[in-house]
Formats: sequence, structure tokens, C-alpha cells
Amino acid sequence: MGQALQQTKEIRASLFGIEQVVSELAVVRHAWRRRQQRSAEPGGRELPSRDALAKILNDLRGALFPMRLGPPELRQESEDFYVGHTLDTVLHSLLSQVRLELSYASRYHEEEGLHIDDRALTIVREFSRALPGIRSLLDSDVISAYQGDPAARTVDEVLLCYPGILAMIHHRIAHQLYQLGVPLLARIVAEIAHGQTGIDIHPGASIGAGFFIDHGTGVVIGETAVIGQRVRIYQAVTLGAKRFPSDDDGKLQKGLPRHPIVEDDVVVYAGATVLGRVTIGRGAIVGGNVWVTSDVAAGSHVSQASLRHEQQNPVSLV
Amino acid sequence: MGQALQQTKEIRASLFGIEQVVSELAVVRHAWRRRQQRSAEPGGRELPSRDALAKILNDLRGALFPMRLGPPELRQESEDFYVGHTLDTVLHSLLSQVRLELSYASRYHEEEGLHIDDRALTIVREFSRALPGIRSLLDSDVISAYQGDPAARTVDEVLLCYPGILAMIHHRIAHQLYQLGVPLLARIVAEIAHGQTGIDIHPGASIGAGFFIDHGTGVVIGETAVIGQRVRIYQAVTLGAKRFPSDDDGKLQKGLPRHPIVEDDVVVYAGATVLGRVTIGRGAIVGGNVWVTSDVAAGSHVSQASLRHEQQNPVSLV
Amino acid sequence: MGQALQQTKEIRASLFGIEQVVSELAVVRHAWRRRQQRSAEPGGRELPSRDALAKILNDLRGALFPMRLGPPELRQESEDFYVGHTLDTVLHSLLSQVRLELSYASRYHEEEGLHIDDRALTIVREFSRALPGIRSLLDSDVISAYQGDPAARTVDEVLLCYPGILAMIHHRIAHQLYQLGVPLLARIVAEIAHGQTGIDIHPGASIGAGFFIDHGTGVVIGETAVIGQRVRIYQAVTLGAKRFPSDDDGKLQKGLPRHPIVEDDVVVYAGATVLGRVTIGRGAIVGGNVWVTSDVAAGSHVSQASLRHEQQNPVSLV
Amino acid sequence: MGQALQQTKEIRASLFGIEQVVSELAVVRHAWRRRQQRSAEPGGRELPSRDALAKILNDLRGALFPMRLGPPELRQESEDFYVGHTLDTVLHSLLSQVRLELSYASRYHEEEGLHIDDRALTIVREFSRALPGIRSLLDSDVISAYQGDPAARTVDEVLLCYPGILAMIHHRIAHQLYQLGVPLLARIVAEIAHGQTGIDIHPGASIGAGFFIDHGTGVVIGETAVIGQRVRIYQAVTLGAKRFPSDDDGKLQKGLPRHPIVEDDVVVYAGATVLGRVTIGRGAIVGGNVWVTSDVAAGSHVSQASLRHEQQNPVSLV
Amino acid sequence: MGQALQQTKEIRASLFGIEQVVSELAVVRHAWRRRQQRSAEPGGRELPSRDALAKILNDLRGALFPMRLGPPELRQESEDFYVGHTLDTVLHSLLSQVRLELSYASRYHEEEGLHIDDRALTIVREFSRALPGIRSLLDSDVISAYQGDPAARTVDEVLLCYPGILAMIHHRIAHQLYQLGVPLLARIVAEIAHGQTGIDIHPGASIGAGFFIDHGTGVVIGETAVIGQRVRIYQAVTLGAKRFPSDDDGKLQKGLPRHPIVEDDVVVYAGATVLGRVTIGRGAIVGGNVWVTSDVAAGSHVSQASLRHEQQNPVSLV
Amino acid sequence: MGQALQQTKEIRASLFGIEQVVSELAVVRHAWRRRQQRSAEPGGRELPSRDALAKILNDLRGALFPMRLGPPELRQESEDFYVGHTLDTVLHSLLSQVRLELSYASRYHEEEGLHIDDRALTIVREFSRALPGIRSLLDSDVISAYQGDPAARTVDEVLLCYPGILAMIHHRIAHQLYQLGVPLLARIVAEIAHGQTGIDIHPGASIGAGFFIDHGTGVVIGETAVIGQRVRIYQAVTLGAKRFPSDDDGKLQKGLPRHPIVEDDVVVYAGATVLGRVTIGRGAIVGGNVWVTSDVAAGSHVSQASLRHEQQNPVSLV
Repeated sequence: MGQALQQTKEIRASLFGIEQVVSELAVVRHAWRRRQQRSAEPGGRELPSRDALAKILNDLRGALFPMRLGPPELRQESEDFYVGHTLDTVLHSLLSQVRLELSYASRYHEEEGLHIDDRALTIVREFSRALPGIRSLLDSDVISAYQGDPAARTVDEVLLCYPGILAMIHHRIAHQLYQLGVPLLARIVAEIAHGQTGIDIHPGASIGAGFFIDHGTGVVIGETAVIGQRVRIYQAVTLGAKRFPSDDDGKLQKGLPRHPIVEDDVVVYAGATVLGRVTIGRGAIVGGNVWVTSDVAAGSHVSQASLRHEQQNPVSLV
Repeated sequence: MGQALQQTKEIRASLFGIEQVVSELAVVRHAWRRRQQRSAEPGGRELPSRDALAKILNDLRGALFPMRLGPPELRQESEDFYVGHTLDTVLHSLLSQVRLELSYASRYHEEEGLHIDDRALTIVREFSRALPGIRSLLDSDVISAYQGDPAARTVDEVLLCYPGILAMIHHRIAHQLYQLGVPLLARIVAEIAHGQTGIDIHPGASIGAGFFIDHGTGVVIGETAVIGQRVRIYQAVTLGAKRFPSDDDGKLQKGLPRHPIVEDDVVVYAGATVLGRVTIGRGAIVGGNVWVTSDVAAGSHVSQASLRHEQQNPVSLV
Repeated sequence: MGQALQQTKEIRASLFGIEQVVSELAVVRHAWRRRQQRSAEPGGRELPSRDALAKILNDLRGALFPMRLGPPELRQESEDFYVGHTLDTVLHSLLSQVRLELSYASRYHEEEGLHIDDRALTIVREFSRALPGIRSLLDSDVISAYQGDPAARTVDEVLLCYPGILAMIHHRIAHQLYQLGVPLLARIVAEIAHGQTGIDIHPGASIGAGFFIDHGTGVVIGETAVIGQRVRIYQAVTLGAKRFPSDDDGKLQKGLPRHPIVEDDVVVYAGATVLGRVTIGRGAIVGGNVWVTSDVAAGSHVSQASLRHEQQNPVSLV
Repeated sequence: MGQALQQTKEIRASLFGIEQVVSELAVVRHAWRRRQQRSAEPGGRELPSRDALAKILNDLRGALFPMRLGPPELRQESEDFYVGHTLDTVLHSLLSQVRLELSYASRYHEEEGLHIDDRALTIVREFSRALPGIRSLLDSDVISAYQGDPAARTVDEVLLCYPGILAMIHHRIAHQLYQLGVPLLARIVAEIAHGQTGIDIHPGASIGAGFFIDHGTGVVIGETAVIGQRVRIYQAVTLGAKRFPSDDDGKLQKGLPRHPIVEDDVVVYAGATVLGRVTIGRGAIVGGNVWVTSDVAAGSHVSQASLRHEQQNPVSLV
Repeated sequence: MGQALQQTKEIRASLFGIEQVVSELAVVRHAWRRRQQRSAEPGGRELPSRDALAKILNDLRGALFPMRLGPPELRQESEDFYVGHTLDTVLHSLLSQVRLELSYASRYHEEEGLHIDDRALTIVREFSRALPGIRSLLDSDVISAYQGDPAARTVDEVLLCYPGILAMIHHRIAHQLYQLGVPLLARIVAEIAHGQTGIDIHPGASIGAGFFIDHGTGVVIGETAVIGQRVRIYQAVTLGAKRFPSDDDGKLQKGLPRHPIVEDDVVVYAGATVLGRVTIGRGAIVGGNVWVTSDVAAGSHVSQASLRHEQQNPVSLV
Repeated sequence: MGQALQQTKEIRASLFGIEQVVSELAVVRHAWRRRQQRSAEPGGRELPSRDALAKILNDLRGALFPMRLGPPELRQESEDFYVGHTLDTVLHSLLSQVRLELSYASRYHEEEGLHIDDRALTIVREFSRALPGIRSLLDSDVISAYQGDPAARTVDEVLLCYPGILAMIHHRIAHQLYQLGVPLLARIVAEIAHGQTGIDIHPGASIGAGFFIDHGTGVVIGETAVIGQRVRIYQAVTLGAKRFPSDDDGKLQKGLPRHPIVEDDVVVYAGATVLGRVTIGRGAIVGGNVWVTSDVAAGSHVSQASLRHEQQNPVSLV
């Protein structure tokens, strides 16, 4: 028996040497697993699936805005049936992704391994309850975009076309997941939008109502950023961290507040960079390409020109 | 009868509370529609579909460049059959999207509500007639890219690979739609390319032959920009508006010329920002990361260094 | 017979005038082909297919990381079967794409037209042998990202979510293809990642182990760049060419070293631009938005502030 | 212009002579249209689509039996949402198919051409109202199959597996459409089941509750057959017409009753053939392979043996 | 809140009255569930899926005959990888279908409800082990068809084209499942083949090596039939039950031997009907359309003519 | 290296014992190949693909009847473009299938191995030229069905719904392929229709214009049958072979005329069986279920009753 298999294997060694490559790839994989202290016991997939989440987000967009982002043949008179059926499907898919993340996480934090099914159910229930609030916030974002862009003709154009709105639909959902304790799912949701829009918002960022991102490509908003209401930002704006505090062992300290606070009604023009736990005060305007690493007073205007005057005492930048 | 349904509903209230969420989402939707003064009468989809336009663009790309972007099995001897059949399908799909936009627009401008079918047919006919001219312009763009990039090996590589070419295929089609009076379709077409390339060109922008965008991510070109022939720009260049004029009521005035005029043979290097209705004269070169808010003379070179000398009289930047 | 066809054609002239447009498009196509000196003889597709390469890359990702990027239902105990079967399919698809490029290239370099099948087979065999090494390098990239980002929770999150990792999977494969003599395939592979991540790495660039790109949107790395080990860069960093040398006829000289050398352990912060064949010495730090066109000493820190001091003697920037 | 097209056409005449075949096929098509007195004016599709109806039937099966023939992930608590949304989609698809048939039919019966949209809406509304009754009848068919087949283990197995049930789901829907005045749709629905099961029931046939067809392949039931309650038949049974009455001109007279009446509780075994407007009386049993062309008394048993005795006076068979 | 939903519902009552139909369908469904004594508690799908099994069978066909029924691009040198990966996928899919059937069955036989997962695993393991034997039997069927049909050119044509072979691939798999205790899965597998070929073999039937069914449409073979080696049958042959024994309460007795025994090397020509637990002796030939309800001696020939002579003492036929 | 692979293999031996099954299946496959004298050298697929032919037939149906079986959105004014493009695609697909069959056949008939590509091209060219004639014949079949069935309302209903027409579209194409020397492709085409309709026509059968099969399930027509014009047959009719002549070695003699000749205007009613090289004379009528093994005179009526009178001298039936 083994002999026959042997023959087969010799024959197939030929064209591309696949047998050899398979074997060498296995060696590399096993080396990685040993280094990462993964158990050798055979098992199935341990990780949530990006494709599954892309499908979930697509359906959630439809359930939140049925007549505009739902199926083209949908009619108003049966919206609720569509919304109900779609939610049912979506929440069950989400439930299994939540279970995957909780089960994956439990390998690192043993005490939490208990009752994964119960915790997953609770998370999805609370997520479900949060959806009407998310829709309200998104309506405020659409209004802000419509009012802030002279090229916008109607609110529906904004919802259909603006990448900033797509990014915010993903962010408001991702932020909810982040708060409910499934940060990996949240991150995947955020990265799907990042790939489609070039807008990179960490799901941890807290963003108030009526947020408008114009054009958007190159925007980066960090994990601990806090943004107020009716804030407007343009392409290539960074709300980032200045440096990463390390602990005594030289390890990065994770989770500390390290990104800006942006208060209500602030505008940040294209290419501006705001770094560190600074505060941009209510109603301030930050000009294009400006580099900010200290607080900005409420109501003030900061531009390259104004900064240059201050640079008698240049801030340390990196 | 109603009693039986009642039973059913009680039973299904359980797992995720979907019934409750559906009801609350309906409340939020209806509040939005009231605020937007949407009629309550039931009806079908009122908006063009992004998926439909993505399919249309994909097929148009094939019809314009059959041997390079058409189906892999296509042969030269039957190109015309393929082009003819594809155009027939595409133009009919486009016709129904045009009808959707005209009908949607007519809700806001009552007088135009008449004869939507006739107007849609006229628009698609004129669009059809414009296609050979669009192909010619795109050929000039390909030539420019091939000549302007030392890494380009062949014109075919440019057509297959360069995101700037993909963006221009979409833009030249979107601009035609914009001029024919369907700006929402035009915008969707532009945003599809924006999502794939990070290049954001408003369909209103007027762009001459032989335009080349290298790398492209982060480029923004505004609605009223006017660009001459053989212009070359690099990644992260903005041709934007300085500020939005408001009318006496503080409302944004829409449609005024507010973006730059860029004359023939200009080059704008990466990260440069040109704001407002300024003119970059024929053959001028704008250096990388430069910030321009006033006219640039024909044939001149503007760099960060040169600007700094002028900044005795700093321009107001925001 | 011809008469009946004639009738048909008259009838179908109607709705969109498709017959006329088909004819005019053919004229434009034939003009292009004449100008490009393409032979008029009928033939099939001459170019590799972006869709085919997208499928190949998708499968290669699975074969390299079966339990994390392979099919969700995969189990560890049958990984090798999956990897072997997937490689077999992928390498055969790749073989036919390689043949297409070699055959396309042979039209321009007649002497190479010989033995295309043999050369294609050799290329795919060597590519196959390189895969375990590519996986090892990618493991080092994942480790670097995990160690360099305080927001990263696990190595698996990095592999699943980070656009910089996606870009590097494509780059390490594209670079191998580039070195094996199929630069068009390499470029298509690179542009697929560029479209998904906004990170534009030319397949010619040489990049050492442990490379980490954070956020990534707007990054551009040129064809002749050379990057050492454990280098870290942020969004919107450009490692570009300063100017293109021309030969005596004014033609661009292709293939000369014209992009930076970045030595081991360098960090380049967001928005920095490094142009020309300069060297960033081992362990140097280049601050955000800094513009560099000359060598940077090993171990030094360059920031906007430090640069400004030197600008008594401003470097020529463009 | 025409010259360029001419060139193109000469070039592509080569490989398979497609141009010639296209031209000859057009000649044959036009000859057919002339013979069938079709107008030459260009137009779109005039006929319902088999694919569209297959999709409609598939969804209707799910809406009628959501937990058993609906989507696998469906849960009981959200059945009604699924049923409502599915019906909404299905009925709108059906509406457009009904319009196609009415509009097609109106070419032959001019007076009916009026108000096609109104009539289509009425038909679909009445069809919608009939669905609960159809489900009840199908439940009775399932019960009959379960009780009549010793191999049946559960009612769910019957619904999932038995081709006779699949045929009856299609028939009860097709019969409703037939009665509502869209016989072409009805016929397509019937033929979809015929293709899948080998059971050929004309949609005009009237069939009572609790009908069971075992095995089924080769069963034929004609347009004017009338079948009572709790009737059971086996594979290859024909309930057909003996001969077709012609009118004085030798033309077939259409629509006359010409197929059997089968009363309640009759059993017809495999291969039996019953021809003409005869009556099989209540509770009669017709044996396998028996050939019947005259009435059979209620409660009697007819077998090959018994028939042979009567064949002193052989019935005329054809 | 409820009020807003109320409004919504009134609005949507319009076009097709869907709300009303949904409600009435729910009533019918609940009546059915009450009658079938189904629990009212909400829950998910309880039944195996025909689509899932169709996919499983399709893949099993490929794993059994990789170079002829596997993917077209497969090459002999990597057969084993393909077979291994496919089996892994298929057996896991089968495992979940087996679980569904066992769990469904346990509702009717409480004691068996224990250890469903263990039992499912055992069943799939034994099924897996049986596959090489199944392939051997199918090879013998192919040989028989090739030798028995003068129109067959090669064994590969037989495997690719003959519906009798398709039916036997399904039957030999279904029979294995039937013996392992999952009769519902077995039945679904059999009905998939029945739908495609018109050949209806109950999975309980026991069939020896080298079985050949020519043409096949209309063949019916019952649950307790026992067929020897090298038997050949033609289209429309029935190996059925004569009558169903009832117990004292008039209920059908299930599971008793009630179908024919057909010994080695028998031939049964088209349309013949063999009913009841009779034995067709080794090497006998049963002529076309013959009706047999008693034993046939080994080596004998039975035809309509020969039967007619015996019909002085006619057998009772029904 | 081999050691690491060894480890992997031990690990994965677990759940289903797949490694063992893969090995045993390889043994069975290799035994089969040895017995069939297949070379052991590795190679790719040697056989045509049923899926590819199903796609080809689907497209051919559209090209033959564009407005009724083509894509729903097709319009008359661009029929020729659709037909031309579809034919181009279809004929190239067919070309590669023809090559596969010729190359497969050449393994058995060495002398024919030369010039496969040339022969394939010739076959497809002649097939292409035959298409207009095939369309004409099919038009005659549609007319016959319409005239022969009192339930048929229009010729379009016949084309859309009647399984007999579907079978004839496949047969007329398959017969052409059979005559051009690719009998395996022809057989696959025939079996696709057999699976969908239950009508089994061997591609070798020669059938005149205006052929009508009503209902159709169970019809079998053999390889050497010859059928005249305007013949009509019903379900379950067999035109078969009586017995297979063997040569002196007991081997079946292939290719001899062994099926009936049916002259013009004959009608054969349901279930009739005609066996052997007999002739049914012009205009004869064969009654239902009749069994015929000798010539039938032109114009005569044969029924069960009439036959019985002759059975003083019963024909030998098997």
C-alpha cells in the first residue's frame, strides 16, 4: 500500500517540485508556531473572517438605509420585512464571528474562557439595541456633509457618494464593537473602510455627532482621539500620537491617552498634522499643512504663517 | 387571524429583540423623511445604483479598449461584434440609470419633470456619440504617461497598470455625463475610481489631452478646475478651493469658479497644494510640498525655498 | 444574402446609433495601432490579465498562511493537502501568465522570442522554490509590526488587518517576479496592492527583513530604492527620485539608480519626503513632513526644526 | 469612415467565417419573422423568461415552507420577516413577467391590449391571496404521501425528497396562474418541474387535496383532466386524450374536455394508461400497465387479467 | 414607538396586501406544526440541506475520479493533494449534515439523543474508509457498461456520459449512508440522481458489482431489492412491491422484504415489471414489457409470448 | 526536512484518517490505469468537459434564437452584434473541446495523431457553416409541434416550453458533431438534453424536418435509426435494437444498422416499442403500447387489438 503511494509521489515530483515546496513551507510554519508557542494539536480556524465581516457590513448598511443602500428592487411598503429579515441574518453571522474572537482571546486570558456563548449573545444583543442610535448619528453626519460642501447637491448624493460617509458608517459600527469588547472585529471593520476610502480611523476613537470628512484620502485618526460635535476635517489630516511612552523595561505602554482632543465645531484643513494629547479648543480653525504639537485655544486660527511667527521658540517636533 | 400573528410575534421577540429594533429603526427613518420633507407615499427605489454604474464602467472600459481590457478570450477578428454588443447592453443600462436621476431631480425642480424619457434618450445618444472622442483623449493620456515615467516599459503596461489611467478613464466618462446634465451619475462614476485609486477628481473639472498623474494617491482636483494640455502632476497634489464665498444669508454660494486654472505643459510635484481661482502659467513648474495661493507666472519654477523669500508679505492661508 | 444583412443594418441604425459608434471606435483603434506599429494580423489576447493575477495572489496568500488566510473551513491536519493542491493550481495559472508576458515582450526583442515555453517553465520553477523564503521574510514583517505599534494586540491581528502587511505580501512576491524577468506581471501584482491599500511600492525596490509600514496610505517607494533590515515608515512617506537624467537626445534614461538607500533600523515619520540617490544612515530618524534631498548621518535625528536652522544654505529642492 | 469599417471586416473574415454565418442566420431569422407575420420594427424582449420564473418558484417554495425549504440559517423567530420580504421581491418579479405575457398576448387579441398594467396588478394580487390556500393543499399532499408509502419515515423527508411533492408545488402554483389568465407563465412553471422530475402535469388539470404521485417518472396528466381528493398514482401513468376532434376544416378544436375524470380515493398503478373523457369511479383501482379507454365503475378493480376476459369485444384503441 | 410602527404598517398594506398574506401563511404553518406536534419553541434549521448534499456529491465524484470528473486543470502529478484536500472539505461538510439528521431523528427516538457528536464522527469515519471499495465497485460498473453497449466507444465515454453510471455513483454512496444509519441523507443523495437521470433507486437496495442500466429513464428499484453481480437492465424496468402488508390495525408494515431478488448475470429488458419478493434465477432473461409476479427459473427466457401460453392460469396481477 | 514533513503527517492522521484513504484510493486508481493500459507519465486533463459543453450549448441556443433564448435585455437592432460576438466565443470554446477529443482519440488510433490542430479547425469551420441550416430545421420542428398539439397556443410557447424542442436543438447540433467526427462531444451534448428532458436520442440517429416529440419522457431513439419528415412520436416510445449481432468470437459487432427506419408522416403513440431494422411505412400509425418487431405497411394502423389477432403466429420477442 505505502509502496503504491511512494510511486505516486515519485512521479509527481516532476514539474514544479511542489512536494518539496510543500514540505519546506510546513517547516517554516511549524517554526513560526513553535516561536509563537502555539499548541501543536490539530484544530480548525481560530480567527474571525474578513470576508464574513465585509458581508455583514454590506447588509448592515442596507438595514440602516434600506431605500438608499438596500437592494434596488426594494419598495417602501415592505421595508420593515426587509430590515427584519436582514437583521436576523446579520446578527446571527455576527454572533459566530464574536464567538470566534472571544474564543481566540481566551487562549491568552484563561480566566475569560468561561461562558463564551453567553458573552457572545450579550454582546450581539447590545449591539442590536445600539443600531437606531447609530442611524441617528449617521443622519447627523450626512447633514453636516451636505451643509459643509458647496459641491453637494442633495443629502442623498452625500449618502451614496461620499467616502467620508462610508468611513463613518464603518466607524460608528466598529466603535460600538470596540466598546463591547471585540476589538479585533472592530479593527477588521475599520480596515475594510480604510481599504475602500483611504481613511484610517482606529475603532477606539470617540467621535461626536455631525462629523464631516471631505475627500478623505490619507486621513489618520488614532485610538484614543476624542472628537466633539460638528467637527470638519479634510484629506490627509492626521490626529496622531507624538511618541510612545515606554515602561521601565523599554516596552511600549499600551492603552494610554496619546491622541488629540478636538472640541466642538473645530475645522482642520487638508494635510494638517496634530500630534499628542493636545486639545484643539472649541471653534478653532487649523490651517492646511500646519503641524501642531501643543494646545490650540478655542476660537483661534492657526496657519503656517502664524506658526512661523512663534517659531522663535520652536517646539520639538519628533 | 390577528391573534395568531400576535402569537408569532411574541415568540419571536426572544433572541436578539429584532422586532423592537426594527420598530425603532422605522421611527428614525420616518423622522428623517419628515425632516427632509419626503412624501410618505410608498414607492420604489428613487436613486441610481452604484453597483449598476460599476458594471457599466467595467463594460465601457472593455468597449473602449477591447483587446486589452475586454474579455481575455477576445480575438481581433471579432472585436466589432464584441464592441457593438457590449455598447448595446451598456447604453440600455445607462439609459435606465439616467432615467432614475432625472426622475429623482424632477422632485426638486418641478418644471423639468416633463418628458423624462425623451430627455434620457437624448442624453444617452449624445453620450454614445462622444465615445470615440473619449478614446482619442485617453490614448493621448497613455502616451503622456509612457513618455513621462522612466519606469514605464510599454504603452500597454501603462494602460493595464497605472492608477492614473484608470482615474482618467473614469473622469473623461464622468465629465461627459456631468456636461450632459446627470451630475449624480457623474459623481458616482468619479467616486468608484476614487475608491480604487485614491485619486479624487470632481467630474466638473475640465482637463485637456495628454494628462498624466503619477502614483496618484491623495490627488484632489476640484469642480471648477481648468487644466490645459500635457499637464503632469504627482501624488498628493491638491487643486482646491481657498474659501467658500457665502451670500448675504451666510449660505454657501454654489457653482462659482473657485479652483485653479493650470495652463499647458505645467508640472506639479508631489504634495503641492494650489488653492483658489489662481492661474499657473504655461510651462510653469510647482515644486513638491509647495503651498500656492496666488498666480504663478508662465515658465517659472516655484519651490519651498523660493517661496520662503517672498514670505515677507505672507499670503493669508486659510 | 448581403441584401438581407443590409436591411438588418438599416433597421438597427435607430436607437443609439450604435453601428456608427462601432465604426468610429474601430477607426480610432486602427489609428492607434498604426501609430504603435502593431501588426494588423488578427490574433488573440497578447497581454497578461489583472483578474487572473488577482486570483493567483489570493490563492498564494492562502498557501503561504493556510490557517489564517486560507479557506475558513480548513483544519490543521490537512493543511499540506490544501497547500499542495493550491500551489499546483496557482503555479499552472502563473505559468500561462508568464508565457503571455514573455511572448508579448518577444515582439519587441526578437532574439528572445525563442524557447518561450522553456523559459516560462524555468521562471515558475524558481518562483516556486522561493516561496518558503518569502514566507520567512513575511513572518519577520509581522513581528516588526507587532512590536512597533502600541495598538497591536496580537500577531494574528497584524496579519489579518494591517494594510502594510498586505502590501508586503504583494511586494515580496512582485519583487521575486521582477527579478525573474517578468516585470509586467510584477507591476500588476504591485498595483493590485496599491489599489487596496494606497501603498505604492515599485516591484524593483529591494527591502530587507522586518519592514513595517504603519497606516500606509500615500506611501511611495521607487524602483531603485534599497531598504535595510527592521526599517519602519509611516503614512505618506515618499522614497522618490529627484529628477530624471536625460540622455543627449533629451530622452529619459531608464534603469539608473535614482532612489534613496535606507540603512538598517531607520525610522521615517509620516509625510516625510526623501528624494534622489541619498543614503539615510543606520538608525537615523527622519521626522514627520521633513523634506530630505541629501545624505543623513547614521544615528542622527532630522526634524523640520533642525532643518530650518540649516536653511541659511537652502538646498535646491526641485 | 465606412472604408475603415470595411477594412476591419475584411480582416476578421478569416478564422471561422463568422461574418458570413451571422449574415445567413439573419436571413433565416427574417424569413421566419415574415412567415410568422412579425412586425419588423425593432424592439426588446417580448417573452417571459424561464430563468426569471425558476428564481420566482425557488423563492416561493421558501416562502411557503420557510423552515424546511428556506435559507438554511433561517430561525423560527424571524420567519415572518423572511416570508414578507421574500414575497415582496417575488411578487414584483412576477408582476413584470405577467406584464410581459399580457403584452405579448395583446399582439394577437387587440382588444385586450388596454390597461395591461392594471390587469397585471389584479392578477398578482389575486395570486398573492391564493397562497395560504395553496400551502394548505400542499400540506394535504404531504400527508397523503407519508401515509401511502411504506418507505416514508417522516413528513419532512417527504417534503424534502419526493419528486411528486416538488411537482405538486409547481402544479398548484401553475394552476393558479392558468386560472388567472397567464397560461404561458403557467406552462413554463410546469415545464420546470417536468424537467426536474419527469412528471408532466398540464397546468390546466384540476387536482383535489391529498394527491400522491409515487416515483413519478413518466407520469403525464392532460389539460382538461379532473382529479378528486386523496387520489394516488404511480410512475408512468398517463391520463391522456384519445384523439383530437377536428372542426369541419380539419383544424384541431382546442379547449374541449378530452382527458379523464378521476374521482375521490382512486388508485392507478404504474404504467397504466387512461385515455379520453372517461370516468374512473370513486375508490376504483386501476392495475399496472392496464390500458383504459372507457368508464370504470366506482369501487371496481381493473387489471390486465380482468380486461383480457372482456376482450371478446375489443375497444378500439387509437 | 408602537404608534410609528403602526403607521408604517398601514402604509405598506397597499400594493399586494403582503401583510395580510404573511399573517395567513403564519396561521397555516402554525396549524401544521400543532397537528405534527412540533414544539413551539423558536429554533434554527432542523433538517439536512439538499444543496449541501449536492455540493458534497459533486466533490466526492471528483475525489473518486480525479482526472476525469475533477477540475479540468488538474494534473496527474498532484492528484493526491487534490484528493486529500477535497476529502477533508467534503467529510467535514458531511459531518455537519450527519449531525443534523441524527439530531432531527433524536426528537422521535429519545433514547438515541445521547452522544450525537460521537455517533456522527463514527459514521463519517466509516464512510471515509468505505470509499476505496466504492471506487472499485464503480470501476466494475463502468466495465460492464462498456462491454454491454455496442454504441460505447471507450470506458471514459461511459464514465463521462452514461446516466446509469451517474445513478450508480450516487447509489453506492447512498447505500453506504443508508447502512451507516442516516437514511434521510441517503434518500436525498438518491433523489438528486433521480432528478438528473430519471433512474429511481432506493438507497436500501443491495446491488452487486458490474451493474449496468442502459438509457435508464423510468427505472424504479425498491428498498428491499437484492441484485447479484453482472446484472443488466434497461429503461423503464420496475423492480417493485406487489402490495403492502398491513398489520391488524390496517397500518402499513414498514421494512419487510417486499421487492425482488435478482441473481447473477440476469438481463431485464426495457419496460419489464417485476413485483414482489420473487426470485429471478441466475442467468435468466426477462423480455421487454413483460409483467412478472412469480419466480423465474435460472437460465430461462421469459417473454410476452411465453407468458401468454401460461395464462390459462393467469396470475393475479394487482 | 523530510522529518518535519513526517511530523506533520503523523499529526494529521487523526480525525478521519484521510491520509490512509488517499493512499488507498491511489492504489485503486493505479490498478485501473494498469488494467486500461494507461501510460504512467504525468499529464493533464485528456477529456472534454461536460460543463464546458453545457455552456457552449447554452450560448448556441441564444445565437440561434437571439430574441427568444438570448439574454433578456437584448434588442432586435443589435441582434447581429450579439450573434457575432457569441459565435466567436462559442466557436473558440468548441475548438478547444474538439482538440481534446481528437487528441484523446489519437491515443487509440495512432495514425490519426497528426495535424490535430488543423483537423480541429476544419471541423469547427464546417460546424459553423452548418448553423443556418440547423436553425431552418429547428423552425420546421417548432411548426410541427404547434400544429400537432391542441394545447399549444403560439409558436413561441412551443420554443420556450416544450422539452421535445429542447431535445431537438441538442440533437441537431449533436448529430452535426457526430457526422464531423467528434462522437464523444456529440454524445455529451445528447446526454445533457437527456438529463433535462428524459428524451434519449443517440447523436447518430438521422431525423428529417418537422419532427415532433410530445411530452417526451422515456423516449429512446437508437444510433442507426432513420426518421423521415413530419414524423410525430409520444412519450416512452422506443426505437431500439432487437438484439446485438456478435462476431465469431462472441464480441458485439459495432456500427451495423440495427434500429428502425420510420418513413415520412408516421405517428407513433405513447409507450410503443419498435425494435430492429424494420421499416414503418409512410403515413402509418402505431398505436399506444404496441410492440413491433417487423415491418409495418405504409398507411396502415397498428394497435394492440389488431396485433392480438395476428398472434396465432407470435413473433419472437427477445
